[in-house]
Amino acid sequence: MDSGLAQKPHELLADVLAAEMGKVNELIRTRMASEHAPRIPEVTAHLVEAGGKRLRPMLTLAAAKLCGYEGDHAVRLAATVEFIHTATLLHDDVVDESAQRRGRPTANLLWDNKSSVLVGDYLFSRSFQLMVETGSLRVLDILANASATIAEGEVLQMTAATDLRTDESIYLQVVRGKTAALFSAATEVGGVIAGATEDGVQALFNYGDALGIAFQIADDLLDYQGDAKTTGKNVGDDFRERKLTLPVIKAVAQATDEERAFWVRTIEKGRQEEGDLEHAMALMEKYDTLAATRDDANAWAAKAKAAILQMPEHPIRAMLHDLADYVVARLN
Amino acid sequence: MDSGLAQKPHELLADVLAAEMGKVNELIRTRMASEHAPRIPEVTAHLVEAGGKRLRPMLTLAAAKLCGYEGDHAVRLAATVEFIHTATLLHDDVVDESAQRRGRPTANLLWDNKSSVLVGDYLFSRSFQLMVETGSLRVLDILANASATIAEGEVLQMTAATDLRTDESIYLQVVRGKTAALFSAATEVGGVIAGATEDGVQALFNYGDALGIAFQIADDLLDYQGDAKTTGKNVGDDFRERKLTLPVIKAVAQATDEERAFWVRTIEKGRQEEGDLEHAMALMEKYDTLAATRDDANAWAAKAKAAILQMPEHPIRAMLHDLADYVVARLN
Repeated sequence: MDSGLAQKPHELLADVLAAEMGKVNELIRTRMASEHAPRIPEVTAHLVEAGGKRLRPMLTLAAAKLCGYEGDHAVRLAATVEFIHTATLLHDDVVDESAQRRGRPTANLLWDNKSSVLVGDYLFSRSFQLMVETGSLRVLDILANASATIAEGEVLQMTAATDLRTDESIYLQVVRGKTAALFSAATEVGGVIAGATEDGVQALFNYGDALGIAFQIADDLLDYQGDAKTTGKNVGDDFRERKLTLPVIKAVAQATDEERAFWVRTIEKGRQEEGDLEHAMALMEKYDTLAATRDDANAWAAKAKAAILQMPEHPIRAMLHDLADYVVARLN
Repeated sequence: MDSGLAQKPHELLADVLAAEMGKVNELIRTRMASEHAPRIPEVTAHLVEAGGKRLRPMLTLAAAKLCGYEGDHAVRLAATVEFIHTATLLHDDVVDESAQRRGRPTANLLWDNKSSVLVGDYLFSRSFQLMVETGSLRVLDILANASATIAEGEVLQMTAATDLRTDESIYLQVVRGKTAALFSAATEVGGVIAGATEDGVQALFNYGDALGIAFQIADDLLDYQGDAKTTGKNVGDDFRERKLTLPVIKAVAQATDEERAFWVRTIEKGRQEEGDLEHAMALMEKYDTLAATRDDANAWAAKAKAAILQMPEHPIRAMLHDLADYVVARLN
């Protein structure tokens, strides 16, 4: 892992893709406009301009460029992917009743749940129009399947998050739904639109899938070991919100009867008391589940690196390779 | 208008399309299943099995059959259209904070807003997969555009409904979004999948558009002149919910200063008092706006009939023709 780099891998990608990302941003601005409903750009501007790393559209552009693509459709697909991501954020905030995202008030707090639901729907329909413009049925098929995986994962999370029967395989499905499905669709459609070989398309899919899983596991781990200043989250938010994530799932799997009763009370029944977070952390410590979770994240990052090395050598391949290290570097 | 018919036009359509509708229902059941998230079929079954006339999928099947189509894609598109409809109902109920639909508790009351938002998203993604299976980019283009019109209309309605500047042209846009866009897409894709001529496709689009507008104007009128027993709504619900619909828009357009102040207080500011509904009804009576609204609904029904008569003679053409009369017959 090249920790001596002056620039982070996503910054290097942003530099090399600057011209295309400029077009993506322009397309996003144009397509989120609505002559008749000014509320739409108000709500979306709040989110789309909020910064974020634009990781997903960059993955599409990077995959296409890595495969030698020079046409305009990659820009459309990158905007598509960002619209889908933004729409899911809007709907997630309604579902989670969130008040903050990236340190700013959420749309549902600034406006209302109605705006978040309907503007999310509008962005989905805009993304749909953009992808149809590529004229590629295969791209449409990939994105339709990704959308279904995302939606199913969200519903699954809603019921599984507080259910102690949720094991690592269900967790993985949820993670694919909430994060990895869009990462893998983003890289896969980049390859498809560039006319990559079947092996290349598969490698790009595998890369996005593993990268997304590593990214989400890292995120869930940081909830318990992160520093509020760098993550923008307080330690233990997931515990307080009764969300079963990997560090707890691993502790539940090994729990004694007494420990299990603790998890039933705090997660399933949500009857939390002073000191419960500390006790939960102690149980994770007892079974060393934070380290085991970190190992899992690293293993998925390694899979992502192995997948991208199936592609021909290219400066972008090196950046994507390092990006896999970067998403878990925060943990190590 | 053939008022001597023993069976209503939508019942005749249901009879002649019974075999195809059976396949549509089977497809809906299969595709709303989710191995991993049992909450999904629970929520959708509640809505999909709730009855309703299944008017939209029947329009797709009828349009295709009228054009001589005998393949399987019409069934997929009919299920697509019903999924889109059901998804918008789920999201509408969150937006409207509705407690009842068709005399039954809504999903957001039985489960929660989360389920309504996420299961709606799931149905959208399922509809998207179904339409991709037809392999027709033109069908995808039509449905993508219809989705955007629907979403934009919903957002527009949210802001326009309580804004007295909302005139008849804005009302028409909202009506196209909330009702006519899916009706016209339903009939248009039926023609496209059947390989109808361009003139035929246009006539089917025009029929669905005008039928949808007539249907929605009739619905809005019945809110003020209907009988709670047949409509399942109480007279004046739209007034109490501060929704500007055509009968009120026509009264606002002719209001004296004093009357305008009444509309500002009751609709824009929502400060309603005992007796306000009766006063609103008196103002609509004064300008005879219920009759003018009925005339508009009849005019759109006449446009729908003229459009369908552009198609070649066929038993289904006669039923669609009579259906246009039927949607406004409740008013006359």
